[in-house]
Amino acid sequence: MDFNLFLFDDFETLDVFGPAELFGMLPEYKLRFLSQEGGLITSRQGAQIMTEPAREGDFSGLLLIPGGLGTRPLLESPAHLGLLKEMAEESAYCLTVCTGSALLAKTGLLKGRRATSNKSVFEWVKTLDSEVHWVERARWVVDGKYYTSSGVSAGMDMSLGFIAEHFGRERAEDIAVYAEYIWNDDSQNDPFAKK
Amino acid sequence: MDFNLFLFDDFETLDVFGPAELFGMLPEYKLRFLSQEGGLITSRQGAQIMTEPAREGDFSGLLLIPGGLGTRPLLESPAHLGLLKEMAEESAYCLTVCTGSALLAKTGLLKGRRATSNKSVFEWVKTLDSEVHWVERARWVVDGKYYTSSGVSAGMDMSLGFIAEHFGRERAEDIAVYAEYIWNDDSQNDPFAKK
Repeated sequence: MDFNLFLFDDFETLDVFGPAELFGMLPEYKLRFLSQEGGLITSRQGAQIMTEPAREGDFSGLLLIPGGLGTRPLLESPAHLGLLKEMAEESAYCLTVCTGSALLAKTGLLKGRRATSNKSVFEWVKTLDSEVHWVERARWVVDGKYYTSSGVSAGMDMSLGFIAEHFGRERAEDIAVYAEYIWNDDSQNDPFAKK
Repeated sequence: MDFNLFLFDDFETLDVFGPAELFGMLPEYKLRFLSQEGGLITSRQGAQIMTEPAREGDFSGLLLIPGGLGTRPLLESPAHLGLLKEMAEESAYCLTVCTGSALLAKTGLLKGRRATSNKSVFEWVKTLDSEVHWVERARWVVDGKYYTSSGVSAGMDMSLGFIAEHFGRERAEDIAVYAEYIWNDDSQNDPFAKK
């Protein structure tokens, strides 16, 4: 199955490469780095990543939508939002990190669902769709096929949570040990929530 | 000042992008992704990163050497080891993540110094140079300008430790909060050491 990571300029580096590290250890998934047009995409921290054009992809696997400053222009781009909506609808599971949930909310697909986002811009994210049940105190939130995480590093805790749920607790723990990652495995343990 | 990240095929993704995320928030540093020949380098998890040829770089800033399976062929490559030795000698500080310390040990620059490495392959790493004082129970170790961390995620804790030491505790904490990263700030707290 494909694990599709959707990139755009000024995405937050760790939003993508935290989950990529952990899912990259599951032979069940092939990681595919995609973008609207394909080619080199530059992260907020200056890493240039080669991507395939998303139009040529099969979206039936997992989708990851990162956050970061680069989400801002995309929120005003019908072309990007249309593609993201199509990809998210076709995906078996859709995971967002940080303000990736702002993008997903803007497609309308989170209406009536529980979701979270980055805690330093939480009040702003809430304004994007008041019909989403925004959960402030959560490292990550699962509602149906949608997994939304809090900021940046929370994407790694969510990734291991997903792996534990779908592949068993032992595999998630093995991957955490391999990566020497101190896993915050409690989705409700959120040290960065403001209230 | 430049923060030079030295990449090679099959490097472990998070070894590079954990530190890149955190150092990328310091305007004092410009991140430069380098490799022996330049061009696209593919990580162990399948991400393709554009790099500059290391020969054209100024190495006087920080150097980061990641680990991963891709270190194995480099340990037998005099060209790579010669370049790494030159870069590490010229650097103001040299940081390694995971088996990046195996490469650094093989250049001879760790002789007589304290260092650590990935815990699942620690016994093997120790065989590369018995004149290094290998420290098993450590999240990261500082000896002079050399900072060596344990496996993969430990590179993030070391990065924040470096930032705290050189830019003040408050800036390290601000960056951890921005990244919503639960920082293990005690270099001696190593849950993955086997003894």
